[in-house]
Amino acid sequence: MTIKSVAFIGLGAMGWHMASHLTKVYTDVRVWNRTASKAKEHARVFATQATSLKEAGQADIIFSCLPTSKQVEEIIQEAQPKTGSIWVDCTSGEPQSAQRLQQQLKEQGVTYLDAPVSGQTIGAEKGTLTVMVGGDPNMLEQANPAIQTFAGLIQHVGESGSGFAVKAVNNILMAANLWALAEGMCNLKSQGVELDAALKCINASSGQSNMSHHIFAQRVLSREFPLTFALNLLAKDATIATQLAGTTQTIMPVLQLTQQLYRSASNNLPSESDFSSVVQQLEQWNNLTLQSA
Amino acid sequence: MTIKSVAFIGLGAMGWHMASHLTKVYTDVRVWNRTASKAKEHARVFATQATSLKEAGQADIIFSCLPTSKQVEEIIQEAQPKTGSIWVDCTSGEPQSAQRLQQQLKEQGVTYLDAPVSGQTIGAEKGTLTVMVGGDPNMLEQANPAIQTFAGLIQHVGESGSGFAVKAVNNILMAANLWALAEGMCNLKSQGVELDAALKCINASSGQSNMSHHIFAQRVLSREFPLTFALNLLAKDATIATQLAGTTQTIMPVLQLTQQLYRSASNNLPSESDFSSVVQQLEQWNNLTLQSA
Amino acid sequence: MTIKSVAFIGLGAMGWHMASHLTKVYTDVRVWNRTASKAKEHARVFATQATSLKEAGQADIIFSCLPTSKQVEEIIQEAQPKTGSIWVDCTSGEPQSAQRLQQQLKEQGVTYLDAPVSGQTIGAEKGTLTVMVGGDPNMLEQANPAIQTFAGLIQHVGESGSGFAVKAVNNILMAANLWALAEGMCNLKSQGVELDAALKCINASSGQSNMSHHIFAQRVLSREFPLTFALNLLAKDATIATQLAGTTQTIMPVLQLTQQLYRSASNNLPSESDFSSVVQQLEQWNNLTLQSA
Amino acid sequence: MTIKSVAFIGLGAMGWHMASHLTKVYTDVRVWNRTASKAKEHARVFATQATSLKEAGQADIIFSCLPTSKQVEEIIQEAQPKTGSIWVDCTSGEPQSAQRLQQQLKEQGVTYLDAPVSGQTIGAEKGTLTVMVGGDPNMLEQANPAIQTFAGLIQHVGESGSGFAVKAVNNILMAANLWALAEGMCNLKSQGVELDAALKCINASSGQSNMSHHIFAQRVLSREFPLTFALNLLAKDATIATQLAGTTQTIMPVLQLTQQLYRSASNNLPSESDFSSVVQQLEQWNNLTLQSA
Repeated sequence: MTIKSVAFIGLGAMGWHMASHLTKVYTDVRVWNRTASKAKEHARVFATQATSLKEAGQADIIFSCLPTSKQVEEIIQEAQPKTGSIWVDCTSGEPQSAQRLQQQLKEQGVTYLDAPVSGQTIGAEKGTLTVMVGGDPNMLEQANPAIQTFAGLIQHVGESGSGFAVKAVNNILMAANLWALAEGMCNLKSQGVELDAALKCINASSGQSNMSHHIFAQRVLSREFPLTFALNLLAKDATIATQLAGTTQTIMPVLQLTQQLYRSASNNLPSESDFSSVVQQLEQWNNLTLQSA
Repeated sequence: MTIKSVAFIGLGAMGWHMASHLTKVYTDVRVWNRTASKAKEHARVFATQATSLKEAGQADIIFSCLPTSKQVEEIIQEAQPKTGSIWVDCTSGEPQSAQRLQQQLKEQGVTYLDAPVSGQTIGAEKGTLTVMVGGDPNMLEQANPAIQTFAGLIQHVGESGSGFAVKAVNNILMAANLWALAEGMCNLKSQGVELDAALKCINASSGQSNMSHHIFAQRVLSREFPLTFALNLLAKDATIATQLAGTTQTIMPVLQLTQQLYRSASNNLPSESDFSSVVQQLEQWNNLTLQSA
Repeated sequence: MTIKSVAFIGLGAMGWHMASHLTKVYTDVRVWNRTASKAKEHARVFATQATSLKEAGQADIIFSCLPTSKQVEEIIQEAQPKTGSIWVDCTSGEPQSAQRLQQQLKEQGVTYLDAPVSGQTIGAEKGTLTVMVGGDPNMLEQANPAIQTFAGLIQHVGESGSGFAVKAVNNILMAANLWALAEGMCNLKSQGVELDAALKCINASSGQSNMSHHIFAQRVLSREFPLTFALNLLAKDATIATQLAGTTQTIMPVLQLTQQLYRSASNNLPSESDFSSVVQQLEQWNNLTLQSA
Repeated sequence: MTIKSVAFIGLGAMGWHMASHLTKVYTDVRVWNRTASKAKEHARVFATQATSLKEAGQADIIFSCLPTSKQVEEIIQEAQPKTGSIWVDCTSGEPQSAQRLQQQLKEQGVTYLDAPVSGQTIGAEKGTLTVMVGGDPNMLEQANPAIQTFAGLIQHVGESGSGFAVKAVNNILMAANLWALAEGMCNLKSQGVELDAALKCINASSGQSNMSHHIFAQRVLSREFPLTFALNLLAKDATIATQLAGTTQTIMPVLQLTQQLYRSASNNLPSESDFSSVVQQLEQWNNLTLQSA
């Protein structure tokens, strides 16, 4: 199959940039967004075309990048993707939804791939996202040139739903690593240890993590907590991971506790909080503040 | 003070290499080991001098690198460091012990610095260890040239005991990150996801950690579990971290649970198990094996 | 409505006795069991009638007491209860299943009540069970005389599914109380405290529970672990409780951990273990045995 | 030894009543309290004698009932109990302190028994307390008649410190049972189940505990939270239990988590909160209130 037209549905913080890279390879790039003005702006800035959902559904490859699987299911209903097309869902979605959609679309001659991304907005802008893909590997091969426009790594991880599963697990690990680090920092703070110095040591040692390296000084010790990834979305991802474990009765006590702590923080912190704000809950319990000297 | 003589006590997996680097700068390098033959071998290979504990105690700077603080306390008693000397303790020790020793040695005109290291045997061999130091920063400056022979980073982190505190926290974070990752992998395995591919994604994403990058594929998925850092030593470090939290009533539920899980695994796995073997406990609970395809 | 005929489906450890009490009030008591010989034996001993499922379905009130909701759903399909009848499900089932069955049967003019029981086989034998009922309270009133034949307490607790919810929560509390007690006893054992004496104190104090009073000495300290309530069934109930919490995102970290511990023990202990055997898992972690002096 | 004189030190909520019962058997009953007016009032009401600490120390049996072991250690220093006397410490104290005091007093010819009590103020008033005793059983026999004046059960549980150990474990079990129950109730509340009815069922079932029976309806569902046992004292007892486990490396994940939750609540709730107020922390996490209909 020759891919002549592509579409991108959902021009949020991530999708805005991802869609823009498609023009590197394709001339027919259709974009759609719930708030139509945003699609028009995208068309103006990146020379894409703001179309209707139905027109987007007539593209050879349709990307979606939406808040939750629920919205993807609704959008697919409306868009009615054409026979022979490939739907690449970059949402951080639910594995069970992927399995349902894959089956349902297969009956209409459409391929569904769950292909969530990681790398944050900066990775989306630079086109270096990691894309973890579940579904038919042959069809992934066909979609590869389009995905590659915004990807640094494209990795097939298994059958339908596997992409979402890996993303959910990645995100609950991110949550666990951040929380554990915050606990350790509370412990050191209570002893009067210099936190910046301690973090420097951890980042040069076996306790290092992406969270210790890229998040803790910048967002927590700085007291900035800039909103780039909402706490309630991370709590949602953590819940996807624990619900997934529920389907196979997998025992994972630390991640279960992690999910509970994020859910609790998400219930109690302001709704527009960055995920790093979760640390404030722990600080309150311990009556201290994790701040640079 | 001009440092003319240095001594190194404890020629284990780490100390063996650390002591060897001292000869880059000093001609009078004294070594001591409980098993004397090892000291003699070190003297032969690296042109150091195998001496008595008393002679080691007469050096200007004395390093120690022993399994636990208990042994350091005994050795200091025997070695009787001379007035004006600096004792640099590279053991992964207990903060409370550091505070006691610092006070006690001060009365004898001796400076005690807690200076644990991280970077594993490979870092010790290459001389690129991270050294986290608690105690008098002026005295650290004096010891700096000696420490630098085996260090990539020397970081003062606070008062006496702070070095040990940071090391204990680093190690319990390492423990937590590894265990959380293993739980996530059990979850994915139960879903039929390809583990090598999933790990590759996590290592390119926000869930990455030193454990996911350097340990999980090499030691767990490979089923090799090579013994380089004993599980019971990591369980000991985790316990130092939780006991430390006990002294200030710091609340850290995830790290408390982590300590319990490692202590339990350490009780039940063979005594000479690598720390990565802890994953086998979780595998048993879940009736599965985390292995490369 | 005058109740003339009643039926009892499922003559297990509980159902056998429960069905027998119905003859106190009714002359037309139909019984059915997967293994038909058991129904015939019941008919012989208690003067009930062993009938087909279809005949059971023609009774005015039909009781079921089966291992799981899945089996109830199958049986209802086969039994085809008659219009106007009341189905009283004494299974320790799933709230979601109750809601589904209630709706589905309503369309056929049949009332479904979830009415799980507690009180163990001894309570079933004596007719003193506690019955917690979800569903239409007016229809419960009609079923009351029949339920009362084997009940000490009949308690309406809310809408359809509420009975199962209360039962699941009761059972996970039972699980939590037993496990916590076992942990406390391990702590005391390690200190050399006399366990029988300690238990006597706890039973006269604020730490008392049904588990400390009726289970711990009799089943654990005695080392008898008699099989009356299978560990895998309690693990199932605990899972119903945590899944229920998942539907509303209720945060309950201690009960989540409890569920994980029972699931893990259930995976690793022999399949025919009494729930009290869960303590053996903890004993193994602690390398000790909780035994009477 | 014939006991002619007894003394009671610490006339708090418990001690006030306990001391009053001693007059049933002894004519020479000496009382002492930090706030002297309280001792004088006791003397007036119960015909005891308000004496100095030194005079109290000259009694044949001296009881103490103070907030913590630290205060007992100070008081013993001041009181200088006479050779041959028995010191019965009814404080909810620390096992390690009991061991130290027992050794130290033995050298002065004084017997120390740790003899904490349970049964709350109502039990103290009625003289039906449970007394759990660690130390020399022969000396307990001598102190028995005096203890019996306020006890329903006197139970020797082991060597010095064992009484405190059992009390600490009892109290952390009380804490765990209450918290678990609150979690279960949050789960039911979120499902719309009637809480009073559910509690009635649990109290007639295997999930019953002293907390479900005597505390939950009266203090939580009623929203009264009357201060009879301060949350920070229960948090202290829970901490004694976990510190004790630390001395033997006993693994008890559920009770460790319980201690963390109570410590956290104790840090964040008003200082004069009843222990039952801990439930408010969980309610906040879940955005709901556990209240009677």
